[in-house]
Amino acid sequence: MYMKMYSAWIITIGNELLIGKIINTNASWLARRLTLLGYNVNRIVVIPDNLNDIAETFREAVNKNIDIVISTGGLGPTFDDKTSEGLALAFNKKLVINEDALKMVREKYVRKGWKLTESRIKMAKLPENAIPIKNHTGTAPGIFLKVNDTYIISLPGVPVEMKVMFDFEVINILKKRASKYYYSEAELTCKGLPESGIAPIVKDVMDRFRNVYIKSHPRCSELGQLIITIHVTSFGKSRSEADKNVSKAVAELKELLGKLGGKIS
Amino acid sequence: MYMKMYSAWIITIGNELLIGKIINTNASWLARRLTLLGYNVNRIVVIPDNLNDIAETFREAVNKNIDIVISTGGLGPTFDDKTSEGLALAFNKKLVINEDALKMVREKYVRKGWKLTESRIKMAKLPENAIPIKNHTGTAPGIFLKVNDTYIISLPGVPVEMKVMFDFEVINILKKRASKYYYSEAELTCKGLPESGIAPIVKDVMDRFRNVYIKSHPRCSELGQLIITIHVTSFGKSRSEADKNVSKAVAELKELLGKLGGKIS
Repeated sequence: MYMKMYSAWIITIGNELLIGKIINTNASWLARRLTLLGYNVNRIVVIPDNLNDIAETFREAVNKNIDIVISTGGLGPTFDDKTSEGLALAFNKKLVINEDALKMVREKYVRKGWKLTESRIKMAKLPENAIPIKNHTGTAPGIFLKVNDTYIISLPGVPVEMKVMFDFEVINILKKRASKYYYSEAELTCKGLPESGIAPIVKDVMDRFRNVYIKSHPRCSELGQLIITIHVTSFGKSRSEADKNVSKAVAELKELLGKLGGKIS
Repeated sequence: MYMKMYSAWIITIGNELLIGKIINTNASWLARRLTLLGYNVNRIVVIPDNLNDIAETFREAVNKNIDIVISTGGLGPTFDDKTSEGLALAFNKKLVINEDALKMVREKYVRKGWKLTESRIKMAKLPENAIPIKNHTGTAPGIFLKVNDTYIISLPGVPVEMKVMFDFEVINILKKRASKYYYSEAELTCKGLPESGIAPIVKDVMDRFRNVYIKSHPRCSELGQLIITIHVTSFGKSRSEADKNVSKAVAELKELLGKLGGKIS
């Protein structure tokens, strides 16, 4: 993107993703949310439940001055939940029982009449200076940590917990670093032309409309049925600017593809 | 993992993944296939259609001596398909028209009576010394490139093309670097215990059975319905060794969780 937008990374932690047991829907859900909020997501990384991998990946994001880093997974009560410890290792911070987090954890279990075991207290151990994020539907608090100019937000891997925390808590953190940009998009379907045939037109329109990004996605293979989806996106300084960028490029694409014999819908 | 297994990275290229338009099913499909073939997938990275990001990520994998790197996306005819150029940039190689690749591309289009345009010839431009991989259902050949001890295999992003190429072509490349390990897994469902309650048992069994990895996945949140899936995996030097590792740990888990009041199925 030619504008200075806030950059975002998504780090998803868990062996289950790396053995292909789970499809990474958390990453695409977060990517969509962050994009619609005007952030430029430029990396999604999946790493194992391994302390060094976790520490190294967070450190890499901070070294690259990424504005917002959101991670999922590794906050629970089991030995392989290592996100908090990984954050502490990454930034040379002590891992301490956070009193606010402990209160959150205690309340959840006390209500059930359960004891605070070592595995449960583990969920309240956060890096120094971290702020716990309230978990509405589960037990492990999230973690908010500022390192240099990077906001790090760690959420649980269970999708329902992650989503509720994002929509009710993370939103408020992101407002402090609110994107100045608005995202807009549109999708066309072009029938009757192969992707290699429309490629020069897409390039031409992108060269002339420099504030949009256009990407073609063949629905079937190039030589089969010729159905291509064309996705046009833009970020603008206002919603109407972003919308206008997209609609101008769409109009141009429709005209040029129509002349070439494409059926646009 | 305590054994020296072949390591694998999966690199998926495409802005559509980073705006959350597409769920990354290619990554989980490949992760599953590679795991079942005995490889240790330790990173999945999603990067944009950006030349420098592509070059940097492949270079990082080679610098880390990853054995097998499989990428998807960025091989097509449009301007934003930059995988081949990114590979050339990463390893300081010339991008040349590969005669074998050109033959593959030409045959596809000639059969349809279509011309070899610049956009189509682009798909035959590979880094020097790369070997094209036959695309059975689409047009863009894949790329096989050896750099130091790393095997790099680039496949298209269209899932059907990627999958057919993996099962019919990539398999033959992987045989040259065949894993010496076999993967085995089992899944238990435990009802009636919270994840924080079974955590000490999982840790204990993992400590005693060091050739297995055990991970618990709450189906619902900790304080709701208590249903936990427990996934036990192992790599062994023979299929029967891997199976035995898993079945021993499963038996032990069943006994200990049963004693604690869990209902196992």
